[in-house]
Amino acid sequence: MAANIQDVVMLVGDSLTQQGWDKGGFAQLLAEMYVRKLDVINRGLGGYQTDWAIPICEQIFAKQHEQHHVPQVKLLTIWYGANDAAPAPSPQHVPIDRYKTNLSHIIQMVKSPTSAYYSPETRIILITPPPVNTKQWDRPDSPRVFETTRSYAEAVKEVGEKENVPVADVWTKIFDAAGKSEEACEKYLSDGLHLTSDGYNIVFQAVMDIVERVYPELDPTWEAHAKMQTVFVPWDQVNVQNPRSSLMKRKAQF
Amino acid sequence: MAANIQDVVMLVGDSLTQQGWDKGGFAQLLAEMYVRKLDVINRGLGGYQTDWAIPICEQIFAKQHEQHHVPQVKLLTIWYGANDAAPAPSPQHVPIDRYKTNLSHIIQMVKSPTSAYYSPETRIILITPPPVNTKQWDRPDSPRVFETTRSYAEAVKEVGEKENVPVADVWTKIFDAAGKSEEACEKYLSDGLHLTSDGYNIVFQAVMDIVERVYPELDPTWEAHAKMQTVFVPWDQVNVQNPRSSLMKRKAQF
Repeated sequence: MAANIQDVVMLVGDSLTQQGWDKGGFAQLLAEMYVRKLDVINRGLGGYQTDWAIPICEQIFAKQHEQHHVPQVKLLTIWYGANDAAPAPSPQHVPIDRYKTNLSHIIQMVKSPTSAYYSPETRIILITPPPVNTKQWDRPDSPRVFETTRSYAEAVKEVGEKENVPVADVWTKIFDAAGKSEEACEKYLSDGLHLTSDGYNIVFQAVMDIVERVYPELDPTWEAHAKMQTVFVPWDQVNVQNPRSSLMKRKAQF
Repeated sequence: MAANIQDVVMLVGDSLTQQGWDKGGFAQLLAEMYVRKLDVINRGLGGYQTDWAIPICEQIFAKQHEQHHVPQVKLLTIWYGANDAAPAPSPQHVPIDRYKTNLSHIIQMVKSPTSAYYSPETRIILITPPPVNTKQWDRPDSPRVFETTRSYAEAVKEVGEKENVPVADVWTKIFDAAGKSEEACEKYLSDGLHLTSDGYNIVFQAVMDIVERVYPELDPTWEAHAKMQTVFVPWDQVNVQNPRSSLMKRKAQF
């Protein structure tokens, strides 16, 4: 019995997305930023990689004939790779060429006019996996390799170029913030693979930079030339004599 | 193009609910707790009171004929009073008897079989407004009175009893935690009216206590007798030979 009131920001990915609801996580920061304008829907699935993401996306994206009844996804972040980059024979491993094909496939599900999931109003941001700090990552049963994850991050940038989708290059931003030292990435990584709130803050800033630069119609900030408004009016704009007239929902985007 | 995958926890209220998306806020804590099981939908509107909440609820609750297409609200928190308790002639003021009637009205919208918004699967929790620390609240244009807010908190408990809805008595829990000292409430109140993360933690615990005690079917914790599961399987349960077969969404509730 939840009516469709706000359109959404949807986050798809692995544990880095799933943990985005933690204090200081990028889902929490986005939800705080877009409150009363867009809902944030977290579809991060810990441990998943892009082979498994495709059947998931076929379920979490609405088909065209369903889109009339559901919130529009105004902004979609796609953030895989931390598990695809696990070396074979891990079941999480996805070879880099198939990883790129899978990312393109997910993007084309949304962008291709011939796709059952075609959604032209959805703005997409790709996110690169962060660097791994192999000195910190203490899971010999599930190893990671610094240079391998770096190459998966590079692959995301290639996909972004090919598909004309902006990329939040979290790998480079975190590595640069750490002075290009794998061990100094510790400030941004809780266990060598997952992010601290400092790490998530870099993700959040990278996403919001792209929104400002590439998708300014989704800029939620209160500026002189605001592009978005709250769905229900600020309380001091309620018509006190005739409240009901002023309490009808509005479009969040001008 | 966001398909309906997870049912929801809906939070209705004023700024105390709206700010629930802040780090350590009760919306953030609930979203973290219910990740992959239920989405959290924040419908807190800063400055609003229960007169204005009714036309809002008429829009954010789905009518019966719409319910087939939208997520079910499994858990609904109703948290007003911080503004209703503003003394007249503030436009935010709602007399205490009407405040009680309004809360009952919102509950009956959901619980009454004759209501257009009837939703028998929705579990409701009422929340009392927290104490105000008038020594800390520095808004002479928008005063609050300690004893008045206390009486509005008492009124919520009366409504809960009348409507048979459990009450998270945040007023008492915070006042007790502060050793029954208005000034010591400062630890839980950022500005005398809104909550710190310590304050929100009390709210979150009070809500989860009710879930465990009254609505155990919505207990999201991983216990031996777990009542809920993730909508998509944990990654180590994916059938590696035939992933698609194991990646179909499931009901979050057993």
